[in-house]
Amino acid sequence: MRENLPDGALLTDPDLTAGYKQDWARDPDAVTPLAVVRATSTADVQTVLRWASEHGVPVVPRGAGSGLSGGATAVAGGVVVTTERMRAIEVDPVTRTAVVQPGLLNTEVKKAVAEHGLWYPPDPSSFEICSIGGNAATNAGGLCCVKYGVTTDYVLGLEVVLADGTAVRLGGPRLKDVAGLSLTKLFVGSEGTLGIITEITLRLIPAQPPQATVVASFSSIEDAAGAILEITRSLRPSMLEFMDRVAINAVEDEMKMGLDRDAEALLVARSDAPGAFAAQEATTMADVFTAHDATEVFSTDDADEGEAFCAARRFAIPAVELKGSLLLEDVGVPLPQLAALVTGIAEIAKTRDVMVSVIAHAGDGNTHPLIVYNADDPDMTERANLAFGEIMDLAIALGGTITGEHGVGRLKKAWLPDYVGEDVMALTRKIKDALDPQGILNPGAVL
Amino acid sequence: MRENLPDGALLTDPDLTAGYKQDWARDPDAVTPLAVVRATSTADVQTVLRWASEHGVPVVPRGAGSGLSGGATAVAGGVVVTTERMRAIEVDPVTRTAVVQPGLLNTEVKKAVAEHGLWYPPDPSSFEICSIGGNAATNAGGLCCVKYGVTTDYVLGLEVVLADGTAVRLGGPRLKDVAGLSLTKLFVGSEGTLGIITEITLRLIPAQPPQATVVASFSSIEDAAGAILEITRSLRPSMLEFMDRVAINAVEDEMKMGLDRDAEALLVARSDAPGAFAAQEATTMADVFTAHDATEVFSTDDADEGEAFCAARRFAIPAVELKGSLLLEDVGVPLPQLAALVTGIAEIAKTRDVMVSVIAHAGDGNTHPLIVYNADDPDMTERANLAFGEIMDLAIALGGTITGEHGVGRLKKAWLPDYVGEDVMALTRKIKDALDPQGILNPGAVL
Repeated sequence: MRENLPDGALLTDPDLTAGYKQDWARDPDAVTPLAVVRATSTADVQTVLRWASEHGVPVVPRGAGSGLSGGATAVAGGVVVTTERMRAIEVDPVTRTAVVQPGLLNTEVKKAVAEHGLWYPPDPSSFEICSIGGNAATNAGGLCCVKYGVTTDYVLGLEVVLADGTAVRLGGPRLKDVAGLSLTKLFVGSEGTLGIITEITLRLIPAQPPQATVVASFSSIEDAAGAILEITRSLRPSMLEFMDRVAINAVEDEMKMGLDRDAEALLVARSDAPGAFAAQEATTMADVFTAHDATEVFSTDDADEGEAFCAARRFAIPAVELKGSLLLEDVGVPLPQLAALVTGIAEIAKTRDVMVSVIAHAGDGNTHPLIVYNADDPDMTERANLAFGEIMDLAIALGGTITGEHGVGRLKKAWLPDYVGEDVMALTRKIKDALDPQGILNPGAVL
Repeated sequence: MRENLPDGALLTDPDLTAGYKQDWARDPDAVTPLAVVRATSTADVQTVLRWASEHGVPVVPRGAGSGLSGGATAVAGGVVVTTERMRAIEVDPVTRTAVVQPGLLNTEVKKAVAEHGLWYPPDPSSFEICSIGGNAATNAGGLCCVKYGVTTDYVLGLEVVLADGTAVRLGGPRLKDVAGLSLTKLFVGSEGTLGIITEITLRLIPAQPPQATVVASFSSIEDAAGAILEITRSLRPSMLEFMDRVAINAVEDEMKMGLDRDAEALLVARSDAPGAFAAQEATTMADVFTAHDATEVFSTDDADEGEAFCAARRFAIPAVELKGSLLLEDVGVPLPQLAALVTGIAEIAKTRDVMVSVIAHAGDGNTHPLIVYNADDPDMTERANLAFGEIMDLAIALGGTITGEHGVGRLKKAWLPDYVGEDVMALTRKIKDALDPQGILNPGAVL
């Protein structure tokens, strides 16, 4: 394989390869890989997969390594293929599309298209450190998805290298194309189990208008949940985020913004309706918050002030992480079940005697319960892990999903059969076996 | 099979089954099916597929029979399963979703959700006669897709009966769900080759605001194409439609609207921006038309007046059909190639000595060249068929697709390998074989 790769692409020195052992999920089962290939081109990825399929060697695809479900955990005797060096982008303002290589960060895509007055909406909280390839592989979400949809809604085409090293082009810069099966959409969210994405054609939209922001505190989860339901049934906020008391206090500890430490819930809502409609929609949301007994409501159409509250929400995870080690959950429920989910999680936290802070993309029912524990305490670690599973069980019982945007990876795969059922698992396995009969693509992830 | 179906569901009388021989594509290869099952439930569909897989009998799924690519052409010795009697709908305004059975017409879905102040955007020109199940099976498009996307963008979940009769639930009423492969999206647009859709969970959005409408005539295709490009790169019209001279005259013959019969192109554009922004965006579009040498520009924010122009555009196909038999094309290109496509089609028409009228969802590059011929003239029929293929060849050469919204069905499958290439065909066949090893699901369609 080495002779067909550019100089420096193949790493086998354990001092170097150890850095590619884990993603942000810090999977304890990770091992140092046999080798790491820092691909510079589609041809490099093909070289690895041709070699791997010939020798039956597992291949773990890796973007920026910011995944939270262990989708890029290195496996024993396997090769990690990282796309971090594939960073080209071409923006076509006429067709409003961009052709990007997978290694570019989400924020870099946003910046490159913004130069043409365009916008790539999906915005995971990790947008400054996650790659667009990883976004496509996991069908990543974010904060604006409540109005603008998720990654798959913006993927028009892909180049994918299949298990045997064949590179295929699927879709392309056409808004409508129904010729053949929807293969593009099948590969989005497939977490590297069906192929390695080497190029993505993205649909773009005109730049987002300025946003107005409303922040409200509530003395009960139910009040906040009621306000969320009333807003989502009648308006289209461009953001509708939730933080619980633990998160509010963790953020306030660090950022000193004057957040109400006694509140049980904080909602941050935004509107990007055009012109004066943004302020008008913000006022309507403020009225809804007041009607649902918000203890404090603050509105602003100042961009910096609004951004400060969004930054506070995005900082919630690192802020809570300062309290201990985290198990980061990602369960989602149909909106009417949001209060039941948050309340149920509090019960699990009590029973298991661990701290669980809930933050959420409330407008689309996608929550991130953060289980805080002391990793040096084996008993507490055990209880945290039990809570992690019980939260997924609860989400399933409420008609929800075990993962709204992070993916199944390795950390959640034990719960996938409970969620989708055996028939869907069998269907999934048929497709996996058809496309990767040797099972060399990201083995142990999802399935 | 009969004993497991409700009374009247199974038709075998050729006088009755003959009505299920063809869809609107009028595939000349269609034969009267062995039987027709008018399913009333998912269980009925399961009954048919269990029996068919046991006996190796082909099954052709059928919605309203309005397909234009022969996706529902009955095959020799096969059973047609029609979902026309499965017509339930439940709308949930809180989660902004609807759970619908496949037999409901698109217009009936729109009306049912409108009662809750909600909107299901996808709007094929045939929306009054096509079923939502057929829309999902073909990933149907329409006129508002230029702003609002296509059917797959609104499908959150499906119930699908697989080849062996197993019913699976995929996705559901959750805006974010990345647990497992994106199977929902794989079945959307699969044209009945992987399973039969028996229930659809749709994402809805708030009712569309009132639209402002601009109509403009041009003395050259290039002027019109230039205006289209300038609009799509800077604005988000809710509709941007094109009619050529033949279509303008065919419509004017019937509707007497005072359209400019000497114009080479007519564009109908709409804006649904909120409040006064709609009229403002319409004015901007009118200015663009004028700057691109439109010979006539007319704007209105009167709903009835605007709807009249849309009705004229939707009437173009029946109006042109009055001139002779039609072969209805559906090719799409990246927008900058639109003028080259239209010009190239005119050359094909000249060479083959047939009339071809082009209408188009111009804003997304999806065109419907209408090949007019005399079905009683074998030589002309032959030339029309040659033109049909040459138009697809041209679209492929221009980086376009052989079908933007109608599907491949049986009429276009000979061109699919030219368009997607042998590697993608092989990949497609792997998935088909994995899910339908006996090949009983809609054999002869797509593959």
